[in-house]
Amino acid sequence: MSGIGRQTWAIAEGYIPGGSHGPEPAMTSHETACLLNTGDETAAVEITLYFTDREPAGPYRVSVEARRTQHVRFNDLVDPEPVPRDTDYASVIRSDRPIVVQHSRLDSRQAENALMTTVAWSA
Amino acid sequence: MSGIGRQTWAIAEGYIPGGSHGPEPAMTSHETACLLNTGDETAAVEITLYFTDREPAGPYRVSVEARRTQHVRFNDLVDPEPVPRDTDYASVIRSDRPIVVQHSRLDSRQAENALMTTVAWSA
Amino acid sequence: MSGIGRQTWAIAEGYIPGGSHGPEPAMTSHETACLLNTGDETAAVEITLYFTDREPAGPYRVSVEARRTQHVRFNDLVDPEPVPRDTDYASVIRSDRPIVVQHSRLDSRQAENALMTTVAWSA
Amino acid sequence: MSGIGRQTWAIAEGYIPGGSHGPEPAMTSHETACLLNTGDETAAVEITLYFTDREPAGPYRVSVEARRTQHVRFNDLVDPEPVPRDTDYASVIRSDRPIVVQHSRLDSRQAENALMTTVAWSA
Repeated sequence: MSGIGRQTWAIAEGYIPGGSHGPEPAMTSHETACLLNTGDETAAVEITLYFTDREPAGPYRVSVEARRTQHVRFNDLVDPEPVPRDTDYASVIRSDRPIVVQHSRLDSRQAENALMTTVAWSA
Repeated sequence: MSGIGRQTWAIAEGYIPGGSHGPEPAMTSHETACLLNTGDETAAVEITLYFTDREPAGPYRVSVEARRTQHVRFNDLVDPEPVPRDTDYASVIRSDRPIVVQHSRLDSRQAENALMTTVAWSA
Repeated sequence: MSGIGRQTWAIAEGYIPGGSHGPEPAMTSHETACLLNTGDETAAVEITLYFTDREPAGPYRVSVEARRTQHVRFNDLVDPEPVPRDTDYASVIRSDRPIVVQHSRLDSRQAENALMTTVAWSA
Repeated sequence: MSGIGRQTWAIAEGYIPGGSHGPEPAMTSHETACLLNTGDETAAVEITLYFTDREPAGPYRVSVEARRTQHVRFNDLVDPEPVPRDTDYASVIRSDRPIVVQHSRLDSRQAENALMTTVAWSA
């Protein structure tokens, strides 16, 4: 059965704070793309990163198994290259099957953490 | 009269922090799906939870009476099984009548609370 | 000229914290519906509030002049009745002309304020 | 190749806090419109600001090169006039090519920063 969602998503906001307070990894400043695949087949996902002053990076490849969610930390993306800290970026997420995407950030640069989230934009 | 909204919604982000600061229950770390039924008949809602490394849990059944809102704390879902803490999940919300769904989290793991919210994604 | 947006919007989350820290009115815990009328005629707006265990309240009437924005604090709605504090609610916003609606909350119950926002759901 | 997105976007919430704590410019209270142009041609963008009690300001002109993102701080908009602090506003963003827009705010009026974000509303 095909899952719900769309195959192309965009997140125009992106920024991994360079500093953190609190125990790792839960309280490390991070940025996440939450991917949900409600379908019955694995979704092959490609993430491309856009910057202010250079050509895009990627694609970063992630697979989300049938009936699973993957909360992908941009901090953990290293192939083909790590995501720079303290740098503005944006992302496009393309999947070969329908998925749902939500964006969130935990910022723990100061002693108390701040959070934000939004559903991504679907094409 | 039929209410406004959709019958299928998804929230790709989900995580109930295991710790809290401040008076219960208002300041307990929690995650909420706010359900609004503006119609004139009760809406029967089923919530299914998706995880990273196991099959989905649920359905959890909630009913939202005519012209009412229910702010469902995922912390309180126990049947058919409690929602694990400190664990990534996602949710799909299906209703037999149109509803509107918004997602929010209060995180009070540190002394000062953080908040986030987003309208859910509607199929 | 007609403005951009929709005539019916819903915000399923709603909760005005009963307490605050910091100088009033900027740092008073509050919940806001930001209304934007980009058109060339005044928009007559009606807000209806939904609760968990009683019939809806309202309509509360607000007008947004041509080419203006009104950031309506739910705290300030008093006619036909004040909005209760520390109480879950939701809202539906109907306008006779297209508008755009965004929801936000500032929570200053603890010493440091928390923020959240989302575009409202448009019918 | 044409990029993904829309040509008209609105952000009904807008407010630049007048005060800040922490090192500039990262921790300065600010409000941002993140613009993503995934297409192969430069996007010419015009931002118009709406207020509560005066006519709109702008257009402010920004260009986003092909395959780039620009995280525009409203704090930095000065031509045709600076954006007032501690003042409610809203914005409409028009582009001659498809873009994706996300809104966020960092509020550091108190010692610990708060964050919020949402995808903008697309016409």
